[in-house]
Amino acid sequence: MKMYDIIHNKREGKKHSAEEISHLIEGYVSEEIPDYQVSAWAMAVYFQGMDAEETAFLTEAVVNSGDRIDLSPLSGTTVDKHSTGGVGDTTTLVLVPLVAAAGVPVPKMSGRGLGHTGGTIDKLESIPGLEVEMSRREFLDQVEKVGAAVVGQTANLTPADKKLYSLRDVTATVDSPPLIASSIMGKKIAGGADSIVLDVKTGSGAFMQKIEAARKLAELMVGIGKELDRKTLALLTDMSQPLGRMVGNSLEVKEAIKTLSGEGPEDLEKLCLELGAAMLKAGGYSPDLDEAQSRLQDQLNSGNARQKLAEIIAAQGGEAGVVEDTGLLPSAENVESYRSPAGGYIADIDARRIGRAAMLLGAGRETKEDEIDYSAGIELMVSRGDPVDEDQMLARLHHGKKADLEEAEKLLKGAFSISGQPPANFDFIIDLIE
Amino acid sequence: MKMYDIIHNKREGKKHSAEEISHLIEGYVSEEIPDYQVSAWAMAVYFQGMDAEETAFLTEAVVNSGDRIDLSPLSGTTVDKHSTGGVGDTTTLVLVPLVAAAGVPVPKMSGRGLGHTGGTIDKLESIPGLEVEMSRREFLDQVEKVGAAVVGQTANLTPADKKLYSLRDVTATVDSPPLIASSIMGKKIAGGADSIVLDVKTGSGAFMQKIEAARKLAELMVGIGKELDRKTLALLTDMSQPLGRMVGNSLEVKEAIKTLSGEGPEDLEKLCLELGAAMLKAGGYSPDLDEAQSRLQDQLNSGNARQKLAEIIAAQGGEAGVVEDTGLLPSAENVESYRSPAGGYIADIDARRIGRAAMLLGAGRETKEDEIDYSAGIELMVSRGDPVDEDQMLARLHHGKKADLEEAEKLLKGAFSISGQPPANFDFIIDLIE
Repeated sequence: MKMYDIIHNKREGKKHSAEEISHLIEGYVSEEIPDYQVSAWAMAVYFQGMDAEETAFLTEAVVNSGDRIDLSPLSGTTVDKHSTGGVGDTTTLVLVPLVAAAGVPVPKMSGRGLGHTGGTIDKLESIPGLEVEMSRREFLDQVEKVGAAVVGQTANLTPADKKLYSLRDVTATVDSPPLIASSIMGKKIAGGADSIVLDVKTGSGAFMQKIEAARKLAELMVGIGKELDRKTLALLTDMSQPLGRMVGNSLEVKEAIKTLSGEGPEDLEKLCLELGAAMLKAGGYSPDLDEAQSRLQDQLNSGNARQKLAEIIAAQGGEAGVVEDTGLLPSAENVESYRSPAGGYIADIDARRIGRAAMLLGAGRETKEDEIDYSAGIELMVSRGDPVDEDQMLARLHHGKKADLEEAEKLLKGAFSISGQPPANFDFIIDLIE
Repeated sequence: MKMYDIIHNKREGKKHSAEEISHLIEGYVSEEIPDYQVSAWAMAVYFQGMDAEETAFLTEAVVNSGDRIDLSPLSGTTVDKHSTGGVGDTTTLVLVPLVAAAGVPVPKMSGRGLGHTGGTIDKLESIPGLEVEMSRREFLDQVEKVGAAVVGQTANLTPADKKLYSLRDVTATVDSPPLIASSIMGKKIAGGADSIVLDVKTGSGAFMQKIEAARKLAELMVGIGKELDRKTLALLTDMSQPLGRMVGNSLEVKEAIKTLSGEGPEDLEKLCLELGAAMLKAGGYSPDLDEAQSRLQDQLNSGNARQKLAEIIAAQGGEAGVVEDTGLLPSAENVESYRSPAGGYIADIDARRIGRAAMLLGAGRETKEDEIDYSAGIELMVSRGDPVDEDQMLARLHHGKKADLEEAEKLLKGAFSISGQPPANFDFIIDLIE
């Protein structure tokens, strides 16, 4: 088998065999196949696509390139959740205790990553004393006893995907649905999940077209799940507006605690209930989504969900008191107000600009070496559709010494669109694909 | 300007600017832009194409990457001819003396190249004593005095194209019309031609096997000529049958001499008259093709064309007597017959197989280091459409000691299709594009 023929086949729109895909991935990892052939192939895939079966072959090859986490010692079916990016995504912090309270074992491995805010791991580390490093046995023990554990990812998962992604990143071949889908599903499967729930976000701008691309991606990932025997559900959601009100690390922990107490922002609670219900269904814990949602709602109302978060924090050595008193979390030295330059309605809030501003305040990392300021971030005081007066406070900027306040304020100026007319209503949960 | 954006633009079907193209080519040659970005770009070009203007930008950038031959000291407009591959292409050997006899200066630079038979240079070197190395001044002097000269190419023409071609060759991006067109036109323009005639071949023996693809390629090259002020004409011809009867080096010289004497195979003479007429028209030596063809026919009939070949050979130190006595050319130690396994009509002769068989007999090079046997090759005794009896001689195999006779005969067995019905007539000259 020759890499030339593999490229040529895809260029001609042919379907790859499992052998072709594993030859390609194994050869690439072992450096027998050079970057310049793989990038030409990736561009051919961009144009010709791959069906669910081929993409499943690629997913398997990517999984086989590295470690595989064995979660089989756990009693009960595990369900993992993945969100395809987005800004201020507090859902994981809410969902882990929420579905654990409903009886689903949640062995959550999470990365730090680069971005507007830290990853789930960074957010949790803003809780005093909390540890995210533990042995595999401690990890599984905690899941059995408490119902959930969150650890940093140390295993060498999907190294082929890391190498491929670095190449795609510099050759304009990132946004190809089969390449995105195999990357995401590969990580989840290598992580040991029995079933998977995906939150596929679509952005602002030219709506229909982007929604259709997101839908195709969601369908492809659900198809891969079918091929590889991992029950997979995908929620298609609109992230043109920031989710919740908080963007930052300890700020998002605060918001998660509020949401787990039934007092969170409506949009965040709604999305968490939908995603949680999908997790219960995917794992076989509930026969239908309505039943699952009402069970999860009970966990919020009864205080069980918040109690579960306290148990997880305590098990990992953290200050569990934060769930009662969020004042125990780090808070910023300075808080500035950002006020509306005009009266009218909030027509739009640009999630990307808000995220970028939070990063400039210290909430995220631009390079691996950057240190996060856990207390930094942005607190939105208004939502899309709200009427506002001139000079009304739109946001609060939490920051320490290292913030680039001036640039962050510039970004905020561009982030809020204020109009004389209220915007049309829209539902940010678009569809469920299974 | 970033290479990422250039790839992305082409991926999205945008048109490249001259700046983008020269950034790409200069960066690639200087190794600031890596192979893996250029191969991804080439695949994007494969799918999205380039128009004549963009392809002209690429052609210019490729020309600018190396030397440029200055033919301006010559009096008279020069016309260069290029054939896009094919098997047993004896046209250059005929055309150089033919159009020189009609008054067109022909400064011909030619390569050795790899393939079924040697290049024009190798074919000429089968003439005893003939030299193809000379200084630039000697070269131009000979063209002024004799009307034509043929030299080996020593200048560093279009190095960017060499580098790009090597990459395309291993990434399944060779057969993209704009990349082929810029490669061919770049070489001709760097070679100093004022005007250009192209013989674009289609059919089983040729590079572009489908007529429509070949037509697009021809149109694109004519378009580049317009953009870059080089009058360009293209003849679209069918190469599913071998042209002429001879495939080999001294065999093709013999056939060229016969053709220049008005006694060559009908198809070869016809193509040479058509191409020659296009050269006269492109160079402004004749107002229309019919007038040009009749002038060239006169050169054949009068013996002038054959005499011109003798002058060129003599000027380059070769045995000019070969034009009167082809017995002075090297001939093979052994000649085997290949006979028809059945009676019927010659429905088809596969040019590729014939070419490959000639190579196995020693007529061509597989690697740069291979030595050519000038006398080796294949002499076809029949043409498409001829009736044949069982056991009638179809071909003669000329070879020396190093031939792989067995494999060559196997190829010949597959090369002739014999049918109970005569094949439909077809005209191998399909169209003229200007």
